[in-house]
Amino acid sequence: MKALVLEKQHELSLREIDLPLDVGATDVKIKIDTVGVCGSDVHYYTHGRIGSFVVEAPMVLGHEAAGTVVEVGSAVTSLKVGDRVCMEPGIPDLTSRASKLGLYNVDPSVVFWATPPVHGVLTPYVVHPAAFTFKLPDNVSFAEAAMVEPFAVGLQAAVKAKIQPGDTAVVTGAGPIGIMAALAALAGGCSRVIVSDLVDEKLAIAARYPGVTTVNIRREKLADAVAKATEGWGADVVLEASGAPQAYDGIQNVIRPGGCLVLIGMPIEPVKLDVSSIAAKEIRIETVFRYANVFDRALQMIASGKVDLKPLISETFPFEQSVAAFERAAQARPGDVKLQIKL
Amino acid sequence: MKALVLEKQHELSLREIDLPLDVGATDVKIKIDTVGVCGSDVHYYTHGRIGSFVVEAPMVLGHEAAGTVVEVGSAVTSLKVGDRVCMEPGIPDLTSRASKLGLYNVDPSVVFWATPPVHGVLTPYVVHPAAFTFKLPDNVSFAEAAMVEPFAVGLQAAVKAKIQPGDTAVVTGAGPIGIMAALAALAGGCSRVIVSDLVDEKLAIAARYPGVTTVNIRREKLADAVAKATEGWGADVVLEASGAPQAYDGIQNVIRPGGCLVLIGMPIEPVKLDVSSIAAKEIRIETVFRYANVFDRALQMIASGKVDLKPLISETFPFEQSVAAFERAAQARPGDVKLQIKL
Amino acid sequence: MKALVLEKQHELSLREIDLPLDVGATDVKIKIDTVGVCGSDVHYYTHGRIGSFVVEAPMVLGHEAAGTVVEVGSAVTSLKVGDRVCMEPGIPDLTSRASKLGLYNVDPSVVFWATPPVHGVLTPYVVHPAAFTFKLPDNVSFAEAAMVEPFAVGLQAAVKAKIQPGDTAVVTGAGPIGIMAALAALAGGCSRVIVSDLVDEKLAIAARYPGVTTVNIRREKLADAVAKATEGWGADVVLEASGAPQAYDGIQNVIRPGGCLVLIGMPIEPVKLDVSSIAAKEIRIETVFRYANVFDRALQMIASGKVDLKPLISETFPFEQSVAAFERAAQARPGDVKLQIKL
Amino acid sequence: MKALVLEKQHELSLREIDLPLDVGATDVKIKIDTVGVCGSDVHYYTHGRIGSFVVEAPMVLGHEAAGTVVEVGSAVTSLKVGDRVCMEPGIPDLTSRASKLGLYNVDPSVVFWATPPVHGVLTPYVVHPAAFTFKLPDNVSFAEAAMVEPFAVGLQAAVKAKIQPGDTAVVTGAGPIGIMAALAALAGGCSRVIVSDLVDEKLAIAARYPGVTTVNIRREKLADAVAKATEGWGADVVLEASGAPQAYDGIQNVIRPGGCLVLIGMPIEPVKLDVSSIAAKEIRIETVFRYANVFDRALQMIASGKVDLKPLISETFPFEQSVAAFERAAQARPGDVKLQIKL
Repeated sequence: MKALVLEKQHELSLREIDLPLDVGATDVKIKIDTVGVCGSDVHYYTHGRIGSFVVEAPMVLGHEAAGTVVEVGSAVTSLKVGDRVCMEPGIPDLTSRASKLGLYNVDPSVVFWATPPVHGVLTPYVVHPAAFTFKLPDNVSFAEAAMVEPFAVGLQAAVKAKIQPGDTAVVTGAGPIGIMAALAALAGGCSRVIVSDLVDEKLAIAARYPGVTTVNIRREKLADAVAKATEGWGADVVLEASGAPQAYDGIQNVIRPGGCLVLIGMPIEPVKLDVSSIAAKEIRIETVFRYANVFDRALQMIASGKVDLKPLISETFPFEQSVAAFERAAQARPGDVKLQIKL
Repeated sequence: MKALVLEKQHELSLREIDLPLDVGATDVKIKIDTVGVCGSDVHYYTHGRIGSFVVEAPMVLGHEAAGTVVEVGSAVTSLKVGDRVCMEPGIPDLTSRASKLGLYNVDPSVVFWATPPVHGVLTPYVVHPAAFTFKLPDNVSFAEAAMVEPFAVGLQAAVKAKIQPGDTAVVTGAGPIGIMAALAALAGGCSRVIVSDLVDEKLAIAARYPGVTTVNIRREKLADAVAKATEGWGADVVLEASGAPQAYDGIQNVIRPGGCLVLIGMPIEPVKLDVSSIAAKEIRIETVFRYANVFDRALQMIASGKVDLKPLISETFPFEQSVAAFERAAQARPGDVKLQIKL
Repeated sequence: MKALVLEKQHELSLREIDLPLDVGATDVKIKIDTVGVCGSDVHYYTHGRIGSFVVEAPMVLGHEAAGTVVEVGSAVTSLKVGDRVCMEPGIPDLTSRASKLGLYNVDPSVVFWATPPVHGVLTPYVVHPAAFTFKLPDNVSFAEAAMVEPFAVGLQAAVKAKIQPGDTAVVTGAGPIGIMAALAALAGGCSRVIVSDLVDEKLAIAARYPGVTTVNIRREKLADAVAKATEGWGADVVLEASGAPQAYDGIQNVIRPGGCLVLIGMPIEPVKLDVSSIAAKEIRIETVFRYANVFDRALQMIASGKVDLKPLISETFPFEQSVAAFERAAQARPGDVKLQIKL
Repeated sequence: MKALVLEKQHELSLREIDLPLDVGATDVKIKIDTVGVCGSDVHYYTHGRIGSFVVEAPMVLGHEAAGTVVEVGSAVTSLKVGDRVCMEPGIPDLTSRASKLGLYNVDPSVVFWATPPVHGVLTPYVVHPAAFTFKLPDNVSFAEAAMVEPFAVGLQAAVKAKIQPGDTAVVTGAGPIGIMAALAALAGGCSRVIVSDLVDEKLAIAARYPGVTTVNIRREKLADAVAKATEGWGADVVLEASGAPQAYDGIQNVIRPGGCLVLIGMPIEPVKLDVSSIAAKEIRIETVFRYANVFDRALQMIASGKVDLKPLISETFPFEQSVAAFERAAQARPGDVKLQIKL
């Protein structure tokens, strides 16, 4: 089967590769329609590794995917051939202690697409457990459905924040995940979101959404902007989506007493945290690792119009131009939020 | 001072009455602009009592109010003369055990406007603690601000429900509070709300809002409608806003395993609850008594456009026609959501 | 294999019966050592049914069990032959929506021992999923381990109550589950538990535990006793373990503002609930269906000495006298908390 | 009135000083019986400051106090002359936004005993709001009651941890607050607590309590000890009570997936936090600033025997030897947990 294969760092090829397609009793087989290009895919391409995950053998990329069910396992009742679906790319051991608690995303044995040595799905067909394959509402397109995976990260953060209706949120970092988090926060009950970044072009994309205001921290202190907007009280929730160590400096000044800080960005090195100042406000810090139990919610939110992810699809490439898509993604143009590949 | 006085059951007069207007150190004095007519005001008028609260002496009605600060106590720093405000009508003992826990609404010593023997605010001036007086954002009108009080009941229910982003909610009962609850649920993170009632005219008002679908339970079983909308899973949250004992019959069939039922409506008699069936789904039941700590959130939600309460104001009467406003309210026309009186 | 078979209502026999003993890849085979006699087992014996579950074919009884692993499936790594274990008797579909949320006990497809038509474990060997089989700490006996299942019901209630350290709890009903709930509440952080019942002999058993005080509601009003103990504030948590409709009458008077009522007992008919009075205190009602994710906690609590269940084992019968054990259980002697059968 | 006055850094005197003793309507006047010596009192003595709080004028020390009511304000109904009491030393503005939310400890306007420029209570009489004065159960001594304040810090941490019955906790740091946190965790539902420190003498004091095991991290890696005790799963809760930056290094290895880290210790400088590793387990971090709404719980826990603080009182000094008590405290003997002064 043809697939976009990362041969090793800096080397991609669209070529034939043997991939297992046996459909187990609880699996479905999906014909892939659309796959989004994720920062992690690009990072494996440009760096050959993410932390301790190292590309040591050719690996198919891609894990943000939607398509159509073409075969169902003998025990599958939730899906049928012809169903349009998107897929949650991590497969946990559902009998593990973490999974039984509902925390299957932090089960250490999770197998995740396009994370070495597991192949991804930039290829025409894939077999996946029905339990992690979600039927699309009729009014959700494949392109939108392939956005569910990155949106799910923002949504997980919004769930962890325990947003109360009318909360004010701050999102630090206007990259794709920051924007997703801002949209999840708004749809999840916040009355308004203040998004900060260093790059005007990124902020401009966020600012198109009603309820979002922006702060370029080159020109204005975030703490000042938040103090002004909240009459000195602070934001109820801060979603840190930049992963930049500097974002942690004084972040407690942006948060109200008893507020919440959700850490989405993954700093490469340990960051400095001013524990005493954070504790003086009894701030709660939540952390996010991928997502669990949110794909169905995300689909409802898209179908109902609570979130509109379509404006974030910057360009769509045909499968044959997958390598070009990755080259473009590697340029990290500030105006590009999400590139997609259509099979 | 002139005021709308409930002399006794069935007898209202707009007349002069002595009301205390001393401004304490932590108080503000407010010139009233708009007062909404609440079902409880009308009930005191038509029945002379609500439960154990009996009108035994002439009482000024009205507790949904907005106006302008005209005087501030010596210790007040949060407000100044000229501020446009709305007021939370219950005054708790902030040193009580419940208040210190943040549950000041269930402090047994709360003094509440227009609840015998406490006077309400259908009168040109009132003195109120600054701590329960909220400055209006510039783009919130007095008419909207006078809607904050009834909306706060729905908002309290939405807070108690602990809505997660993308939840599906059901609201049973399309009266004013039911509609408020539906709007709070949507703004608070639900992707959609299914509202049920017996009266098409009420449902039609709810159905004007995006995200709301309606079920007339004379024609369709609610459980069937919800099963269809959720593929048999059930709603995440049910907000019971009818107070009708029949609403409790089979309500567990509408809720998903592990879901939540919030009781807003106040049935006059004890209701029959099928504990075993409710327990088989481990449904959590939350109850609501007025509200606490939500007026500021409500104002943010209105200011940001997350909720639009203006369409619910059915008609506005001048202060001189207050009695007529109550006579109209007593008719309980299904198309009337909220009547207001402008001073 | 020999087993205690409920042939039909009122008819038990200890006889040979064919039971499947295939060990799947993720299963273990256990040699049963001790099985407790549960009220539900007895109810099937005396009534032939519980609600919609009807005994329509011979069924092996027993679901409170401990024993020794004698064989492990090919994929099992968490257990080995010779491990002493106890078993969680419900087997959910771990791929279901409820299970993925961590709510596997409310997965509608749960298969549960000794619930028609599923056989129980009063028989020398059973095969069970390793994921629901728990290794015993060295200092936990088989007799104690066979108490984990009923204790788990009380523990689930204590978890749902979200006890805060130092809470005062009330338990209504001093049957086996009521006592288990009281012990779970104490071990789970309550400073004291007030247990109520009509029968002195039952109360006397509860009263042996430090931290427990008792109220015989034939002689003293529970609300009075709680008001006295809490200076009029009320209990933080009430665990309703009687299943008696009368227990609901005025129960809100026993609970503090903002407190919690956990419903463990399963009334046969719907009960009358005074919603308005309960709402006036914003009481939260939690419901309990069996348990999830508590067997490991229960074992830790027993092993550490936080709970001592041994005094609740009233008498132990040899397997050959299983029928006699059930006849004794059917007498419902007030001094009998738990009868066990040793194989 | 005579008082222990910190004149400036390193200079204490027991001398006459003018202190206000007007009893307001909602106040009570207390004759002090016992005052504990807190690390913060000692720190002001030895360093003249704690962070931004600088001793710039003579200040009475002491904030862990118990005594007897000798006068009550005109509006006080909860207490009467002769009541034995202990006092919560922070006085918030109960009308503030934080206080109305129940978070009065993080109200920025809190006035706190023995925190510059506010006088403490090492003096025979003090006036205090009745709302923050707690009647002692008959079986709680003044000496125990003066331990409520430091215990409250540990209790606040246990509340924030949201302990579930049977949890395993780790406490890093076996100083007074660490031991208090360990006791609060055990009484609050943990089945066992593992306490770590560098000093055997401190660990030995903790180890006297049933349920506590200890790890001297000079000799054994904490992560190894916890992995062994939990079969590799990790602790449910870690209470960081050392304030040492080194405690943060690898702390996520001690915590289970989805577990909680509560920060009690106040590091002087920002600490390095390995966000990515912490996020990989979706660990929640809670912070603690003093306490709110726990004094009544603490008294219940002491009265019921759930915690025994008496063994932690290392020595009691008469008021006349207050300076000697502080000199001893400044030695920081590892065997001294709490020194008290009796008036």
